Amino acid sequence: MDEMKVIEIIKKTLKFSNENIVKGIDDDCAIIKIDENFYLVATTDMMVKKAHIPSILSPYEIGGRILTANVSDIASMGAKPLAFLVSISLSKEEANEKFIKELYSGLDDFSKLYDCPVVGGDTNRGDELILSGTAFGITDNPIYRRGKVGDDICVTNDLGRVYCALTLYYMLKENKISYKEFERLCQKYPKIIEKLRKPIARIKEGLLMNKLINGCCDISDGLGKEITYFKNFEIYSDRIFKLIPEDVIEFCDAFNLNPIKVALNSGEEFELLFTTSKFNKVKDSLKGYSKIYKIGKIIEDGQFIDGEEFYGGGYIHKW
Amino acid sequence: MDEMKVIEIIKKTLKFSNENIVKGIDDDCAIIKIDENFYLVATTDMMVKKAHIPSILSPYEIGGRILTANVSDIASMGAKPLAFLVSISLSKEEANEKFIKELYSGLDDFSKLYDCPVVGGDTNRGDELILSGTAFGITDNPIYRRGKVGDDICVTNDLGRVYCALTLYYMLKENKISYKEFERLCQKYPKIIEKLRKPIARIKEGLLMNKLINGCCDISDGLGKEITYFKNFEIYSDRIFKLIPEDVIEFCDAFNLNPIKVALNSGEEFELLFTTSKFNKVKDSLKGYSKIYKIGKIIEDGQFIDGEEFYGGGYIHKW
Repeated sequence: MDEMKVIEIIKKTLKFSNENIVKGIDDDCAIIKIDENFYLVATTDMMVKKAHIPSILSPYEIGGRILTANVSDIASMGAKPLAFLVSISLSKEEANEKFIKELYSGLDDFSKLYDCPVVGGDTNRGDELILSGTAFGITDNPIYRRGKVGDDICVTNDLGRVYCALTLYYMLKENKISYKEFERLCQKYPKIIEKLRKPIARIKEGLLMNKLINGCCDISDGLGKEITYFKNFEIYSDRIFKLIPEDVIEFCDAFNLNPIKVALNSGEEFELLFTTSKFNKVKDSLKGYSKIYKIGKIIEDGQFIDGEEFYGGGYIHKW
Repeated sequence: MDEMKVIEIIKKTLKFSNENIVKGIDDDCAIIKIDENFYLVATTDMMVKKAHIPSILSPYEIGGRILTANVSDIASMGAKPLAFLVSISLSKEEANEKFIKELYSGLDDFSKLYDCPVVGGDTNRGDELILSGTAFGITDNPIYRRGKVGDDICVTNDLGRVYCALTLYYMLKENKISYKEFERLCQKYPKIIEKLRKPIARIKEGLLMNKLINGCCDISDGLGKEITYFKNFEIYSDRIFKLIPEDVIEFCDAFNLNPIKVALNSGEEFELLFTTSKFNKVKDSLKGYSKIYKIGKIIEDGQFIDGEEFYGGGYIHKW
């Protein structure tokens, strides 16, 4: 049984809703209507140590990451974060003052960065480290995962570094490189490892472009998956290429990776993928915060890359 | 290191807040001010299988329980539940259609009961079953854990059954009784086992008495602990005795337990413990929903039971 099947069963089983709920489990956030101009958005994200937390991350970085992963969903709704709650299950290994202090220092610093206070939580003992966060935010105009025909499809900043960082991490984990070599490579590609260690949610960007865009989602599972939420699109690899920073190109050369594949598969980037008919206005509004790049357009029907059918994950795996 | 120490470290480490946050991690819920007459309350509660979930509970009952444990904190604020998010970590044992369906059926039925839709979640694989829920609600008048000098201290309905049910469960788990004997005792004390299996959060009660009470908390850790949140009080065991239903008295006789100790230590009852100067009005307002009982008063200074010093947990353990 895979996660898709589990979610399918859950969706079928959960039947109850009421008039307040604009959107349930289908978007980055749930949307609850308070009144015509006031929506509450909420999201939850759980991190299980074995499955989600590279062992090279420090407790401080883990704290920052659980907050970033959650508020990034708030950013993708174009909403303002309001507060964050986090429950934690600690195994014996982590139940010490040093670990807890560092973890919550990371949470505290990032909550300041996002103006999103940590207001509650629950602590438990368990077999492994698990963090479960819930962020909520407010907006007068929640942005969905969608686009209008003719809209430009755009991405903020850059893609690919997290994939490269995880490639390095797995080489270390599978003993393909020594720890010394890993450290040398981290020093050689500092921005690559930095984006794994301290990703940033694009809160300000989401707020600044709220009235200028038609749809948005955050890139947590990789562009190749997120783009399919827009349903009908054409994208171009030469445009995606412009999103890929120089160090990722270098890294791909050195380790024989296809940079377009890397950009399509790089998850937990927390950049925003959005649709707009006002590219220049968005560009101006984000000046000083983030660069943006067009990678394609929303079309009437079909999913294409470079004029050929886009197979999503399947397409990606063909590389 | 115990949970109190962990929470102390967390509180010290989390420094950032802002003007929206009326109350952080110190009450049943966090309170966020939206405007003068509109507060958002939010709470999170995590259940780890080994630590929190008696193995006699069915998946359906586990689903109901995680929702009840969370919305009970909303009830204690006198707020109306708005929505619920739940993240889940499944081990191989639970990752099957039957388990997931039953679990989420429990969630769905109880979300209907509380008019609190499940709007989001996250699913993960882990070493053991973990459920992490977050409920939020709204109110124009959040009720804190407090009381005014002279207030009556009151409790809804009854206390003691959950303690008895867990006593039975541990007798089974420690092989002191056979499963057959366990089943016989469950049939003999149906309401005792029922309150462990299907506890109910007192949402309607919290809403109905919102303007009539001065303080409130829900009884999740036992009256003996919750009462200390009111700081200065005198309570009386003959009054607490009136809260104890006939079947608990019988059970205590049969198994040589002190019923007052049972009432003070019975957790996850989800009854409301509240302070008021308008006992009769509260009583009238709850007619048809819940009975209420006075157990003592808020005083100037000190904590007393039957005129003697109340040692909280320590006192309780002396029984």
